[in-house]
Amino acid sequence: MPSLVIVGTVALDNIRTPFGEVRAALGGSAFYAGLSASYWTEVGVMAIVGEDYPEEGFRLLERHGVDSRGITRSKEKTFSWTGEYTFDLNTAHTLKTDLNCLLSFDPDLPAVYDRLDTLFLANIDPDIQLRVLESMPVRPSLVVCDTMNFWIENKLDELKRVLARIDILTINEGEARMLSGEYSLVSAARKIVGMGPKILIVKRGEYGVLVFGKDSVFASPAYPLEEVKDPTGAGDSFAGGFIGYMTQSRKSTDDVLRQGIVVGSAMASFCVEDFSTKGLEGLSRNTISSRLSSFSALTSYPDLPSLDAGMKG
Amino acid sequence: MPSLVIVGTVALDNIRTPFGEVRAALGGSAFYAGLSASYWTEVGVMAIVGEDYPEEGFRLLERHGVDSRGITRSKEKTFSWTGEYTFDLNTAHTLKTDLNCLLSFDPDLPAVYDRLDTLFLANIDPDIQLRVLESMPVRPSLVVCDTMNFWIENKLDELKRVLARIDILTINEGEARMLSGEYSLVSAARKIVGMGPKILIVKRGEYGVLVFGKDSVFASPAYPLEEVKDPTGAGDSFAGGFIGYMTQSRKSTDDVLRQGIVVGSAMASFCVEDFSTKGLEGLSRNTISSRLSSFSALTSYPDLPSLDAGMKG
Repeated sequence: MPSLVIVGTVALDNIRTPFGEVRAALGGSAFYAGLSASYWTEVGVMAIVGEDYPEEGFRLLERHGVDSRGITRSKEKTFSWTGEYTFDLNTAHTLKTDLNCLLSFDPDLPAVYDRLDTLFLANIDPDIQLRVLESMPVRPSLVVCDTMNFWIENKLDELKRVLARIDILTINEGEARMLSGEYSLVSAARKIVGMGPKILIVKRGEYGVLVFGKDSVFASPAYPLEEVKDPTGAGDSFAGGFIGYMTQSRKSTDDVLRQGIVVGSAMASFCVEDFSTKGLEGLSRNTISSRLSSFSALTSYPDLPSLDAGMKG
Repeated sequence: MPSLVIVGTVALDNIRTPFGEVRAALGGSAFYAGLSASYWTEVGVMAIVGEDYPEEGFRLLERHGVDSRGITRSKEKTFSWTGEYTFDLNTAHTLKTDLNCLLSFDPDLPAVYDRLDTLFLANIDPDIQLRVLESMPVRPSLVVCDTMNFWIENKLDELKRVLARIDILTINEGEARMLSGEYSLVSAARKIVGMGPKILIVKRGEYGVLVFGKDSVFASPAYPLEEVKDPTGAGDSFAGGFIGYMTQSRKSTDDVLRQGIVVGSAMASFCVEDFSTKGLEGLSRNTISSRLSSFSALTSYPDLPSLDAGMKG
């Protein structure tokens, strides 16, 4: 029985970056997040795929111990995102979004899982996120939600009803500004925390994340890589690692939150090193452990001496 | 006798941001860096001002114990930068640059200071930077240099001769890419370190800094502020605090480097809270100490448990 369930998309993506191109590649918010979380906790994915979806996708989840009983298969085609990146890998340019079977996605979570610790509502129509939340007989102890500019522009009321019921929201900088109407992220965070979530995680791509809690702010950089081949799924991999770590820790203290952010950042750094989900597949404990050590070396510094000693006369 | 000497500009700036406007305001790379460094070490400024430069500027330096014997007065007008920022405070839009007396700046450093520990060549014509370096009978133990896109485009050969003789270079992201011809900052850093400096500090505005040493990378965020009124001088205040701290520490270990980066980041955060140099003036030990504590709280996290315990099964 999984401790964490992720509701979102499973997709076949067409991606072009300055470093290459893939077609009908495994992807989707719940797929990336599920693989990433699988290293940290028992995880199940709820999504919909089309009749064209390859067995390879299911086998990959299985090899990572991800429960795919919540993935239904429709007679339509699989949801597909076509996009490209130029050298500024921070910005994805969407060329085409084929919703296909996603239009008939209607997840019945309690029918598959009767209890869970953590629910991650990955980026998807807020109507669906709300229905899932309302369908749960017992609220999971941790509910995390992701969304995107499209829903902020087009379904703000529905989104606000979701926000009122969640614990943690993850969005990017531009979305935080759009949702709050504030340019300063500190002001934006205060407004958004006022909408419901106790914690706001602002994703800043290659600049890392800023995490706003009630009385605490945490900044974590992205791991600087020599070569980023494909940024697709970085945010979902971050969220999967972060939430997976939080779930297995069974605590939501500020300390565990910060550790989880670092774990998520490390998982995202693996994701972007290769196309599609390749960088996330079959990672060894040593590989992850070594990246986490590098991450610590990246950000730590010795306590400053007391200013009486350190400052001028 | 100052331990640190800063060669750069002293200016009268006209600045407009969404939060207000100032005219003929105190500024310049050496002025910001000097004030910021003054909290940490004995500092002298070498620059040139015009006959229109107000006594107020000298008095401000004096109140902060900055030695201004190296500032000469010319019969022309003072160097002046006119610029504006929109809500994206990361990008300065230059409206006008009046070089004025800067064209006749010819600092004779050994005539004023016969020995110093640290030399900071703030952003200025690389020809001048080179002349200053070559004029020193004894090389200071630490030489730090800043530059900008204009010199990379127009005086690359001269700049490269400077780079070959310095210890630390501070530039922004775009400049690091321009100077190296590499998009990846990791690759850019490797190339730039190959040009001479042992350490490259990449300034990323509101995203903080990335520091590349020989075998070490350090990432430090900018302090998240509710209100940034005027980003002018942030990079120079960062450099001043950083170099001031390094100078008084009398060590160039990786530990001291990292502490210095945090000190510089804190000093920059004061700078941007008000127009011109107002945010940097008359800071108390308590105020600085408290910002440094907040900075530590912003980035620290508890060691992760060993992965045998922390990871799934």
